[in-house]
Amino acid sequence: MKQISLLGSTGSIGTQTLDVIRDYPDQFTLSALACGTNLELCRNQIKEFQPKLVSVQRPEDAQTLAGEFGDSIEFLYGEEGLKEVARYSESDIVVTAITGSIGLLPTLSAIKAKKAVAIANKETLVSAGHLVVSAAKENDVPLIPVDSEHSAIFQALNGEPKKAVDRLILTASGGSFRDKSRAELDGVTVEQALAHPNWSMGAKVTIDSATMMNKGLEVIEAKWLFGLDYDQIDVLIHKESIIHSMVEYVDRSVIAQLGTPDMRVPIQYALTYPERFARPKHERLDLAELGKLHFEKMDMERFRCMKLAYEAGRAGGTMTTVLNAANEVAVFRFLQGEITFLEIERIIEEALSAHSPIAHPSLEEIQAVDASIRKQLQA
Amino acid sequence: MKQISLLGSTGSIGTQTLDVIRDYPDQFTLSALACGTNLELCRNQIKEFQPKLVSVQRPEDAQTLAGEFGDSIEFLYGEEGLKEVARYSESDIVVTAITGSIGLLPTLSAIKAKKAVAIANKETLVSAGHLVVSAAKENDVPLIPVDSEHSAIFQALNGEPKKAVDRLILTASGGSFRDKSRAELDGVTVEQALAHPNWSMGAKVTIDSATMMNKGLEVIEAKWLFGLDYDQIDVLIHKESIIHSMVEYVDRSVIAQLGTPDMRVPIQYALTYPERFARPKHERLDLAELGKLHFEKMDMERFRCMKLAYEAGRAGGTMTTVLNAANEVAVFRFLQGEITFLEIERIIEEALSAHSPIAHPSLEEIQAVDASIRKQLQA
Repeated sequence: MKQISLLGSTGSIGTQTLDVIRDYPDQFTLSALACGTNLELCRNQIKEFQPKLVSVQRPEDAQTLAGEFGDSIEFLYGEEGLKEVARYSESDIVVTAITGSIGLLPTLSAIKAKKAVAIANKETLVSAGHLVVSAAKENDVPLIPVDSEHSAIFQALNGEPKKAVDRLILTASGGSFRDKSRAELDGVTVEQALAHPNWSMGAKVTIDSATMMNKGLEVIEAKWLFGLDYDQIDVLIHKESIIHSMVEYVDRSVIAQLGTPDMRVPIQYALTYPERFARPKHERLDLAELGKLHFEKMDMERFRCMKLAYEAGRAGGTMTTVLNAANEVAVFRFLQGEITFLEIERIIEEALSAHSPIAHPSLEEIQAVDASIRKQLQA
Repeated sequence: MKQISLLGSTGSIGTQTLDVIRDYPDQFTLSALACGTNLELCRNQIKEFQPKLVSVQRPEDAQTLAGEFGDSIEFLYGEEGLKEVARYSESDIVVTAITGSIGLLPTLSAIKAKKAVAIANKETLVSAGHLVVSAAKENDVPLIPVDSEHSAIFQALNGEPKKAVDRLILTASGGSFRDKSRAELDGVTVEQALAHPNWSMGAKVTIDSATMMNKGLEVIEAKWLFGLDYDQIDVLIHKESIIHSMVEYVDRSVIAQLGTPDMRVPIQYALTYPERFARPKHERLDLAELGKLHFEKMDMERFRCMKLAYEAGRAGGTMTTVLNAANEVAVFRFLQGEITFLEIERIIEEALSAHSPIAHPSLEEIQAVDASIRKQLQA
């Protein structure tokens, strides 16, 4: 029986993680969960899964729930609560399914408490990849990717040594605006941006897909998870999202992981790794029915956020902290209707231009840079 | 330094194996070779690679070469010669690159002498898979596939346990006559059949590709190499031959191996396994340039040899020995201009219908069935 701490239980990855836990009640137990402000859903999850520890965003919500559920469950809140869920003593593995660099401190807590981490929070690796990876190495803790692309690469690597790898090929669907020109992008609405053609995801990652920043963040995430250079990480447009990503080896063999677009597959793999469990009632991939798979070169001028991500990644240090913080603020402001779609990339570009990176930042330096960018870019 | 015995050095897989050995003179030595009647090429290979043991098909050729090269090289001939090359004491690995069930005895010799076998002779597994696989198990000898499809599956499995596998998906280019109707197939010539769209191969396997029997033989080969049921082995038409084959796991993850169609990649992998060496000057797979990959359902009525292969495989015992022997004779006779293209499948079908299979045949029983079918079907 694997005991699981779930950070971000009411979000898209969170609820799909619960689907997987629900499919294997004899294998998985939800010991602890953390969520934000969706009390209604949180309440139902507590009733169904009976975790021992629950953390919510606001103190008043913790109090409300404690009143309802009594003493058998411990209720916490805020950043401290998140960290407690992450390092909960009975948990074997922590799924970091919250969005944004708010995931950093709980991820580090989980690692220090020697929990395996199923990492679904890419912003943490973008903002402070060197700290997370070195902490995981120090504590001999596995970081198992949940993002479909990184899970694909993890499966395509399957223990092959780094020296055998020539490059990673991350596939990108192209998002909601794949076929729009830059001129057309200027007037797009929030609703249009939220309509992703292949994947059902949260708002932040759907907008990131539309700007292609999501793929940029994934390039940086891949750099840290797999310890390769940026020159060894390429992106390929593949609109069907069937090949989830690939590894090209030095002998020119390419190993790819494919499947229907359903996040429950990589989530389950992260929980069962190194084993594989059957996916109940899951549709088979039927390539004959699909008939064709399409591939296109990534256009870095068309998708400038990709270019910014590579540049920030290559510059290193706090540059990716700035990339991530500026992107989080800009996407939030776009979702609020405060800025246009193309202003997202302009805001990020200006923030990067203005920043002088710190080469090997400490946690405190990262937090300071992150906070200052957020303060500065908030309207 | 790995010492190699090469059976079939002048054929398509043989010469490409020598390309790989040539690329890595510090890693590989050709200790022994066997070839047929192409003395001109054989002579050049002896000069270049200086093997210690050489076997040719005819005694007079062995004598001729012995006269030319003197005592530093041992020359043998015929079946005994093939077996000596296969069990040559200094060799670590034997590449079985000869075509047809003539490969059976030398393959068994190599296994009994505890050599690793890089298996490029599918007819051996089709004709007597149970004997080869059980001998390999008994002698704790690895059978490493060289066929691009089986190498793809071997790489996609990469040590995953059998219980995690749902099915194998062998891809098939469709061969020279992919787009022809059955009516059109009636009048095709030997020259048309020998023009394969993607792969450069020997005559036998190119005709087998055109009839789709090649894929049928590969299904049976896969059954023995990977120890699965026929229900777990599917075939998918994929005309570009870029995805070389796939494994679908129980969790609905599909792992595929891709690459440009070049047999030197799987040959090299068989020689370097479990390591991977760089392929010198080898073209990268460029999916964006290809643009599209196509997939189609396999039509068992259109390609009746596929159906015959599944039926023979499921019937088991000597049924696949008959399938293979009848096919070898029929293809030979087609290449000689004695029969038409569609007569190939008719001859095989009739031979299968007339045969009462022996369930767990001994080597002698297999040899007797093989010989009787050949005698009977020879014009």
